[in-house]
Amino acid sequence: MNWNIEEEGYDKKNIEFFGSKFCIGNGYYGYRGSLEEYTKEQLTACTLSEIYDDKGNGWRELVNVQNPLYTVIKYKNTPLTVLESQIKSHKQSLNIKNGVHTRCTEFITSDNKIITVESQKIASIDNKNLLVMKYCITANEDMDIEITTKIDEDIWDINGPHFSKSEKYYNQDILTVKSITIEKGNAVAVSTRIKCSDDRCSVATCEDNLSRKILVKVQKGIPFYFDKFAVICKDTDCRNVCNDSIRICQDAYEQGFDNLIKNNNEKWAKRWDKFDVNIEGDDLAALSIRYSIYLLLISAPFHTDKVAIPARGLSGQVYKGAMFWDTEIYMLQLFAYSYPDVAKNLVMYRINNLQGALKKAKEYGYDGAFYPWESQETGEEGCTHYNLVDIFTGRKMRTYFRDKQIHISADVVYGIKTYMDITGDKDILLEGGAEVILECARFFYSYSYYKKSKNRYELLDVTCADEYHERVNNNAYTNYMVKITLECAVYTLTYLEKNYPDEYLHIIDKLNYEDDIRHIREMNDLLYLPIPNEDGIIEQFDGYFKQEDLSIDELYKRIIKPNEYLGSPVGLAVNTQVIKQADVILMLTILRDRFSREIKHDNWEYYEPRTEHGSSLSACVYALLAAEIGKVDWAYKYFMKTGTIDLQGAYKLYLGDLYIGGTHPAANGGTWQVAVLGFGGLHLKGDSVELTPRLPEKWNSLSYKFTVKNNTFSVNIDKRQIIIEADKNNKNVIDFQVYEKQFSCEANEIKKINYEFKGE
Amino acid sequence: MNWNIEEEGYDKKNIEFFGSKFCIGNGYYGYRGSLEEYTKEQLTACTLSEIYDDKGNGWRELVNVQNPLYTVIKYKNTPLTVLESQIKSHKQSLNIKNGVHTRCTEFITSDNKIITVESQKIASIDNKNLLVMKYCITANEDMDIEITTKIDEDIWDINGPHFSKSEKYYNQDILTVKSITIEKGNAVAVSTRIKCSDDRCSVATCEDNLSRKILVKVQKGIPFYFDKFAVICKDTDCRNVCNDSIRICQDAYEQGFDNLIKNNNEKWAKRWDKFDVNIEGDDLAALSIRYSIYLLLISAPFHTDKVAIPARGLSGQVYKGAMFWDTEIYMLQLFAYSYPDVAKNLVMYRINNLQGALKKAKEYGYDGAFYPWESQETGEEGCTHYNLVDIFTGRKMRTYFRDKQIHISADVVYGIKTYMDITGDKDILLEGGAEVILECARFFYSYSYYKKSKNRYELLDVTCADEYHERVNNNAYTNYMVKITLECAVYTLTYLEKNYPDEYLHIIDKLNYEDDIRHIREMNDLLYLPIPNEDGIIEQFDGYFKQEDLSIDELYKRIIKPNEYLGSPVGLAVNTQVIKQADVILMLTILRDRFSREIKHDNWEYYEPRTEHGSSLSACVYALLAAEIGKVDWAYKYFMKTGTIDLQGAYKLYLGDLYIGGTHPAANGGTWQVAVLGFGGLHLKGDSVELTPRLPEKWNSLSYKFTVKNNTFSVNIDKRQIIIEADKNNKNVIDFQVYEKQFSCEANEIKKINYEFKGE
Repeated sequence: MNWNIEEEGYDKKNIEFFGSKFCIGNGYYGYRGSLEEYTKEQLTACTLSEIYDDKGNGWRELVNVQNPLYTVIKYKNTPLTVLESQIKSHKQSLNIKNGVHTRCTEFITSDNKIITVESQKIASIDNKNLLVMKYCITANEDMDIEITTKIDEDIWDINGPHFSKSEKYYNQDILTVKSITIEKGNAVAVSTRIKCSDDRCSVATCEDNLSRKILVKVQKGIPFYFDKFAVICKDTDCRNVCNDSIRICQDAYEQGFDNLIKNNNEKWAKRWDKFDVNIEGDDLAALSIRYSIYLLLISAPFHTDKVAIPARGLSGQVYKGAMFWDTEIYMLQLFAYSYPDVAKNLVMYRINNLQGALKKAKEYGYDGAFYPWESQETGEEGCTHYNLVDIFTGRKMRTYFRDKQIHISADVVYGIKTYMDITGDKDILLEGGAEVILECARFFYSYSYYKKSKNRYELLDVTCADEYHERVNNNAYTNYMVKITLECAVYTLTYLEKNYPDEYLHIIDKLNYEDDIRHIREMNDLLYLPIPNEDGIIEQFDGYFKQEDLSIDELYKRIIKPNEYLGSPVGLAVNTQVIKQADVILMLTILRDRFSREIKHDNWEYYEPRTEHGSSLSACVYALLAAEIGKVDWAYKYFMKTGTIDLQGAYKLYLGDLYIGGTHPAANGGTWQVAVLGFGGLHLKGDSVELTPRLPEKWNSLSYKFTVKNNTFSVNIDKRQIIIEADKNNKNVIDFQVYEKQFSCEANEIKKINYEFKGE
Repeated sequence: MNWNIEEEGYDKKNIEFFGSKFCIGNGYYGYRGSLEEYTKEQLTACTLSEIYDDKGNGWRELVNVQNPLYTVIKYKNTPLTVLESQIKSHKQSLNIKNGVHTRCTEFITSDNKIITVESQKIASIDNKNLLVMKYCITANEDMDIEITTKIDEDIWDINGPHFSKSEKYYNQDILTVKSITIEKGNAVAVSTRIKCSDDRCSVATCEDNLSRKILVKVQKGIPFYFDKFAVICKDTDCRNVCNDSIRICQDAYEQGFDNLIKNNNEKWAKRWDKFDVNIEGDDLAALSIRYSIYLLLISAPFHTDKVAIPARGLSGQVYKGAMFWDTEIYMLQLFAYSYPDVAKNLVMYRINNLQGALKKAKEYGYDGAFYPWESQETGEEGCTHYNLVDIFTGRKMRTYFRDKQIHISADVVYGIKTYMDITGDKDILLEGGAEVILECARFFYSYSYYKKSKNRYELLDVTCADEYHERVNNNAYTNYMVKITLECAVYTLTYLEKNYPDEYLHIIDKLNYEDDIRHIREMNDLLYLPIPNEDGIIEQFDGYFKQEDLSIDELYKRIIKPNEYLGSPVGLAVNTQVIKQADVILMLTILRDRFSREIKHDNWEYYEPRTEHGSSLSACVYALLAAEIGKVDWAYKYFMKTGTIDLQGAYKLYLGDLYIGGTHPAANGGTWQVAVLGFGGLHLKGDSVELTPRLPEKWNSLSYKFTVKNNTFSVNIDKRQIIIEADKNNKNVIDFQVYEKQFSCEANEIKKINYEFKGE
């Protein structure tokens, strides 16, 4: 079984991509897969979650701290770095089983000696403040080497700098820098201490109080190493970031590298026990799904419900570190089925930030909660009005991502519903969930218009996933998702009134919701839901079918300048049926029980050739629906596209001069969804579990675990048999439907079901 | 008194402009002010009203016929033309009192002789088919001259050719060409016959059967001339265009030039008696107002109710010869106050074309009547989806003039109301007017959305006069004009039910209007009408105040390419408060009795500096409201801008390669409105006439006539006194309010009222 990502040789053109590919992290911070001698020029970053800053120009982004692991060696006064020195060999690898990033480089000196540098790094998931490195030097002759290791204050920022001031402390051999952010005055501290392998060296602290110089008499063939214990503390969870970081650093120093690694490995093993998905017979697919899960595990907020997962994880500051609907639609199910605590954090993040959504609605003159398109730690809208530059005029273009993506509020409600459905935890309603649901429903009522002549509510002037077509009326995805919101609101009212009458009255009173009950019930009855036309196709929005219908290739032929933006207001796709990404198809994957296989099939066939996949959120959706309707070859093709995105880096790194690379959590979550929900065929229908697996030709077997309402099952699927194994601690009997067969499964039971999948 | 437009000297750069400036016409056709030797290269055109053609590419436009007056002389085998020959003097003039266009050119021959060519042309208003020319040659020595005069088949078309075939006939010395249009097979014929002044010449008909060659032995100082009697017949009013044109031509020939001129002059005198407006003390203003009226008189459909007045009159095919809301908003009052028969034709044109409006509404999925933005003879929408070209990419841009200018239906209803209010002719309701009003109201109900949370109807996604901002919500002009429509509909129902119960029942039944009565009454009660904000300003549309507020100069500084389109979708004005033309201000001039002087004043002050006047429909509106609120200096400035537009040609002739020049009937009508309604202060309030004159400093006096409900009054206003003289044939006593004074006025009465105007 392959858990290792490796790259041999060195090529500067991969610097940016590998920074993301070899990223480590623990949800508290992300540390890019940079080499120790890299500086900000190579996009080195230690990106903090939760801490955002606006240096004063309206662009808020996650804060990067000083790189505590910067290290470079000198031989005869010449630095040895992959950027400038002669190299005999170079290898970089990441073990995704335990999150260890290693590098090994053999440098050739000017006098033809060989110096080997090896390092290992972990972002501890056992102690979220810890970042630990072992740095090891071996030479093929005796020699003097000078090592400089420091906390690099020269921070890479997209829109920085973000610190108004930094102070340095030297204490018990621990170097500390404490910094204060500009906008909100958040305090963060970085401490480091080193421990050398033996006494062949002398260590001196430099005047800058951040660097140490180690002079080593290396002996031929005998490795010299030092361990660096770095600690990052933020005032989101530390009372005194300085004291805490020094204390934790000292503690780590005392535990030592091997113990820290051991503890970290144990934690990773436990985590994989919950999350692992295994595929036999297809190594790349197996690695892709595991790597996708790894990337989510290093970004997810295991420790807090104050943030969700940013659009580029913690691989940098791209997209402002903002959290989009990606979390609810693409990532939440993985956590809800595998680790409900994190799912709850993700849901609570939205609940905690209801104020931001209320504020945004008010800003636009609406009632209720209008959740932001780009959400940050405050829950306020982080998106600006002008988000693109016209390539022909150099002018900023007004976009309506901020103003018109009302579906986010519905996605948030859908997230709460998903969490409740899978975990069975309806208490979330009493923890603020009910208020979110009711305020979102209220928002939609206030946003909607009633068409008297048609006796229906409509949702006008909206933007959805297909951002090539902004400001459309009655977008199918939006309307159906709003329907879910209204149903949830009606359900919530009924549920609370029946089960928690006091809380019900309290909430109605607190929200002043008396009139709204009538409103949302009426809107729930009368909301316009676009139905399939005579060919079975659901129109993406009013008038979509009237747009020019041409192939994507024909559209591309009209391009007159590379990197033209194809979308609104005047891009080439705007007046055509070419769409950016899954929209109706996404709706069909979410509302799978409302539409027949035939409708799904017809819509997939219609929209697939018209979809440009100009977003990493698209391919997995086409894969998921293709798997569901039995188009397994197509599903596999799109699955591999999604699953390998961060392994193979087939994405755009720059938009103009702006770096937009990094990892793609939505695609990572999508990869899991296709594997487990698509090929694995897992689907929750009411209280029973449906399993309708459809394995790709190449796969011998697929196995995964899932937890439904606190009951955990292991599933192993091969081409002929499905084995379901109920965990011994399960409390409930769960009903299953596996193809035509229905049965119940209690703790410790093992069920083996033969099946035959016939394809499309 | 100056009735003459004159230009001396010759400059090729004026060719296009003078073609419009010296235009003659009679509503049946327009004949550009070209010189006889001009061909299509100089944009010579004889443009027919009523006949439109689409050669097959979707661009329908008015049809130009063969130029029947082409004439060129040769001396010693060399043509003498202003384009190529040496000229001693050249003068072109137009007498707007009787519509006579003259030219006089002294050519210098290669051997230094002087040949003088003089011509006179009239488009007869006594016989609409007639176009007559006298062409006269005088030389300063005896010589042989060859004259070629022909029907020039080489037609200037913007989107032609428009004839599928042409046949030529030679009959009784009359040359005739009959042509058939491509799209609808309309037949048109052009006949000519010439009569020479004496027998110094020989006349031969050329083989093409359209040209005649006249060889003249000119004697020193003795003019030789020929008269050319040209006839244009269309199958819209002629059974057999060939026979008719030959017959009329023969008849004209027999009457002779002098009689035709005499009859024409008499008719013009009668017309001016109805229409004249005189200004003493300001020659340019006097000429401007008269020239404006002249331009409308030569374009207006005196003879038919099948068409209205195209956007460029009959000065060519520009804007497809389409008829816009310009007629109802800018021209109708002039005719209703001066010559109700033409006003009725204009109104009946819309009534006759209800089917086109019903069809357009249906095409967009609405009920009722959605009148076209660009209307032609069928009343169907002539506007296309792509009307502009992006100057940066060369791509066609999607515009929403066609789709979203719903205000046209309201303007049509306002036109009927205007006609009824001024003429008192409510029978128009029974002649189809009621159906138009009711179908337009029904359209608005079907277009509108009801906002439940605000208990109001709204009009969303509309475009109004300010086309820089397309697709906006609740445009103030649109909403208020729709309010007028609904009020008219309610009034119509009440009026008919009370006075014509049978017809009422018939109409309700025919239109299946039973439910609609309730709908439009409710919408009339609950339509959202934007009210002034705390600063007294009415927001042009929802969110307008939130747009960037910068000066027009600042906006201009952002221009990076000449002739950039400033409007939607991505022009520089789109996200700013800079507007193309009067919009809220137009609404305030129309709904003058609903708003206080203070509100008008505040809005004028707010919107004026933000208005770019990118349309010839703008300046007159600012003038009109400025006059009404006593800002006479500003009113005068804008009045002169509007009034001189076609005199001085301060407008754009080309958009890219596309000729868009011609006369500006809306501005011409606007000039009249500012003079009579603005400075003259004429306003109908219910059944009584308000006169609140405010003369510009420079003017000694202003006089005009008006007819209200068949009662005609002459008004003479000087700086201190207003003299009102009732026509002896008046049947009714009319109530007047002149500033604070109220009185009645019966037939033959003369009232003299002293007043003092104090200015703003």
